[in-house]
Amino acid sequence: MRLRFWFEFASTYSYVAASRIESLTAASGAPVEWKAFLLGPIFQSQGWNDSPFNIYPSKGRYMWRDLERLCEREGIPWRRPSRFPRSGLLPARVACWAGDRSWCAEFTRRVYRANFAEDREISDLEVIASILDAVGQRSAEVLARAQSAETKDRLRAQTEEAVRHGVFGAPSFVVDGELFWGNDRLEAAVEWARSH
Amino acid sequence: MRLRFWFEFASTYSYVAASRIESLTAASGAPVEWKAFLLGPIFQSQGWNDSPFNIYPSKGRYMWRDLERLCEREGIPWRRPSRFPRSGLLPARVACWAGDRSWCAEFTRRVYRANFAEDREISDLEVIASILDAVGQRSAEVLARAQSAETKDRLRAQTEEAVRHGVFGAPSFVVDGELFWGNDRLEAAVEWARSH
Repeated sequence: MRLRFWFEFASTYSYVAASRIESLTAASGAPVEWKAFLLGPIFQSQGWNDSPFNIYPSKGRYMWRDLERLCEREGIPWRRPSRFPRSGLLPARVACWAGDRSWCAEFTRRVYRANFAEDREISDLEVIASILDAVGQRSAEVLARAQSAETKDRLRAQTEEAVRHGVFGAPSFVVDGELFWGNDRLEAAVEWARSH
Repeated sequence: MRLRFWFEFASTYSYVAASRIESLTAASGAPVEWKAFLLGPIFQSQGWNDSPFNIYPSKGRYMWRDLERLCEREGIPWRRPSRFPRSGLLPARVACWAGDRSWCAEFTRRVYRANFAEDREISDLEVIASILDAVGQRSAEVLARAQSAETKDRLRAQTEEAVRHGVFGAPSFVVDGELFWGNDRLEAAVEWARSH
């Protein structure tokens, strides 16, 4: 059964899931669909105008320490970014436009590393252009398409699709209508995809 | 190194952790200290006057399904309670008074089962008295002590102690100043206790 991986570029735990998902799904044979979406509108509908990790300081302090431990254990490069959250709108439009293209996963992982291991500004056109170049794409062309009215609408629709699946945070995984939330549930989602 | 298990009787995921902790820690040899506390005052300081699972319906819907899957996988009895959250104040006072007494763990597990497998009202004196009797205690005597001004103060102080450790949700585990949050982090906390 196909596994849909819903991610938001601003989300720290989505970075960990994006770094782990392919080795887990490769072993199980479950195909993965990479689905970018935006948490902003979802958080706003819950009355939050910032990341809950900023709104609730004790939760935020814990998250940063937890991420550090988690990345060390998993061997994932990690440096706490100097700005959080960074807007993931631009790379989300690129990933949404890219859809099923084979370079989308590698593009996504590189954007996450830029944010959470290299402390780079992922809302910056030049940063995203350099990542597109690095994955062998014509950045000017891709960026023009990613910022078209059509792609903007598509990303909005994709976020609404996430909400219809019950998504309220990132990362989330959906397998045949079954929702799993959080990097901690990646194994359970892969197992669900394998056995259903 | 000693592992402190911070739990709230109203918390669904604390039930799962309470059901799993002893088999995990028995294997590692890490001693466990059972520490009841109240989430109410902590949630109130974050501006919540109810469980976040009630305040944020999509998060709540997910939690109920996740608990069902989790308990099935772990072989833990589960029935969604007809009322949520139930006040855990009375059993928390009992557990706080009990402290290191050997029956505290079994009392705690039975209260969780009453709430999350038998749909019983754990704020009811008779329910708690019957559980105390079942674990071989003189319920009238224990309940009198648990409701003394001294124990009430002690539970307040214990909740403040949790806050000083950075606790913002339940279950939480603290090992030598290192905080772990959520049933999903139980294995990591036990490993930390074993290796430090």
